[in-house]
Amino acid sequence: MDVERIGIAIESELLASFDKLIEKQGYANRSEAVRDLIRERLAQEKLKKPSGKAVAGIFLVYDHHATDLSRKLLELQHSHILQTISSTHIHLDHHNCLEVIILKGSVSELQKIADHLTSLKGVKLGRLNLMTTE
Amino acid sequence: MDVERIGIAIESELLASFDKLIEKQGYANRSEAVRDLIRERLAQEKLKKPSGKAVAGIFLVYDHHATDLSRKLLELQHSHILQTISSTHIHLDHHNCLEVIILKGSVSELQKIADHLTSLKGVKLGRLNLMTTE
Amino acid sequence: MDVERIGIAIESELLASFDKLIEKQGYANRSEAVRDLIRERLAQEKLKKPSGKAVAGIFLVYDHHATDLSRKLLELQHSHILQTISSTHIHLDHHNCLEVIILKGSVSELQKIADHLTSLKGVKLGRLNLMTTE
Amino acid sequence: MDVERIGIAIESELLASFDKLIEKQGYANRSEAVRDLIRERLAQEKLKKPSGKAVAGIFLVYDHHATDLSRKLLELQHSHILQTISSTHIHLDHHNCLEVIILKGSVSELQKIADHLTSLKGVKLGRLNLMTTE
Repeated sequence: MDVERIGIAIESELLASFDKLIEKQGYANRSEAVRDLIRERLAQEKLKKPSGKAVAGIFLVYDHHATDLSRKLLELQHSHILQTISSTHIHLDHHNCLEVIILKGSVSELQKIADHLTSLKGVKLGRLNLMTTE
Repeated sequence: MDVERIGIAIESELLASFDKLIEKQGYANRSEAVRDLIRERLAQEKLKKPSGKAVAGIFLVYDHHATDLSRKLLELQHSHILQTISSTHIHLDHHNCLEVIILKGSVSELQKIADHLTSLKGVKLGRLNLMTTE
Repeated sequence: MDVERIGIAIESELLASFDKLIEKQGYANRSEAVRDLIRERLAQEKLKKPSGKAVAGIFLVYDHHATDLSRKLLELQHSHILQTISSTHIHLDHHNCLEVIILKGSVSELQKIADHLTSLKGVKLGRLNLMTTE
Repeated sequence: MDVERIGIAIESELLASFDKLIEKQGYANRSEAVRDLIRERLAQEKLKKPSGKAVAGIFLVYDHHATDLSRKLLELQHSHILQTISSTHIHLDHHNCLEVIILKGSVSELQKIADHLTSLKGVKLGRLNLMTTE
């Protein structure tokens, strides 16, 4: 992997605030911190396109007494549109489970499946977190 | 205002994607684009603290036949906690008006007032946009 | 405008938490609060489509010594794609101005113009707030 | 769990749009859909307080050649402040791994740890997804 070195002009005051923040966060150096800002910006841009390829983490908080849910979740994960990568099940408390499903697909497909999973009876909260890898 | 020049090491591939994005957006050069990313990151950080000072733009879409609303909006703008800077009224269509209110205050106060304005009868949609200036 | 009355089954505990929240926010009654949740959900849905019609509030914090900016802002507002509705200029402090521009257009056009305005030299922070009216 | 039945007055047109959306999403009935909106609203409210209890899913995309990272991630997960519940590791492609870490803690602690993990050398993208359970 080729690495280049670029020069950035920046106001002293702004730089001082940035240095303070990235030190607090634990960055080893400015380059690492600036690269992360750039990657995050590029990722946001990609995720704006409904057809863009993404990896999704779907979080579902649900009542584990809703017995039919696990079967429905399984069915959906076997549907053709999506590529389920993994699924983690966590007992949060006496009533609530958390299911974290990692999937690949286009932004619009992933939003659709997240909406669908959230709508299932027994699911109390559904959240979609979209990422890009490239 | 003092300006410094810092060096950033970055993978060629990542840099190429960034250059492409900022050219599309219209940036004159990389320094300007990187500074904007840094400012945005610092602003996000500040707005996490409920006590942080901020400027808010509150958007309210409302039915302008809801006659009592303008009086209530005015009352609220005269309350002590907040400092209203400006207020712009726009006719969107036959039914809907948009009111954009600019205020200064702490993050938590601004969230509270936005919730309150949104709750008023006749207000159909309320949005809060928080910014920092420094 | 026709109004219907629907029945909603809800757990007592969840209802109690909701009642507490909406009283704090200032809602006159539950119907108003539920309608607002529904409108907000529908608005989110619409704004996912790049071709969806929207109203945007673009916030720009900029250094008012950057003299060329106002000319460029004006030029952009006269471009054909977008329909500028209003523009409010506010003096925040010795260095910073806030410009709030209200525009109509498709979601993708509005995102494009917000990116472009943010990229202008002198603009320190740019924010896009998208709303739908219908 | 006690269930109550409440009546909601709503404009026919707004109700028709809502019915269309929730049918598309797959909701079995309106009550389920309205309850989900209420739960999501209450969750947002809770997550505004830095001291509020939350469950976090932290997503990290990283280069798996960055050998020191797994050791550091492990160390952090053994720190006292946080309660790691689970950790899932996924091979995304030749270069990239995805680590999904589920933790419990206060909102401010979880934000801090997410910032810290994102700052580690080799981590390309970090995302924090906060949820509440109660």
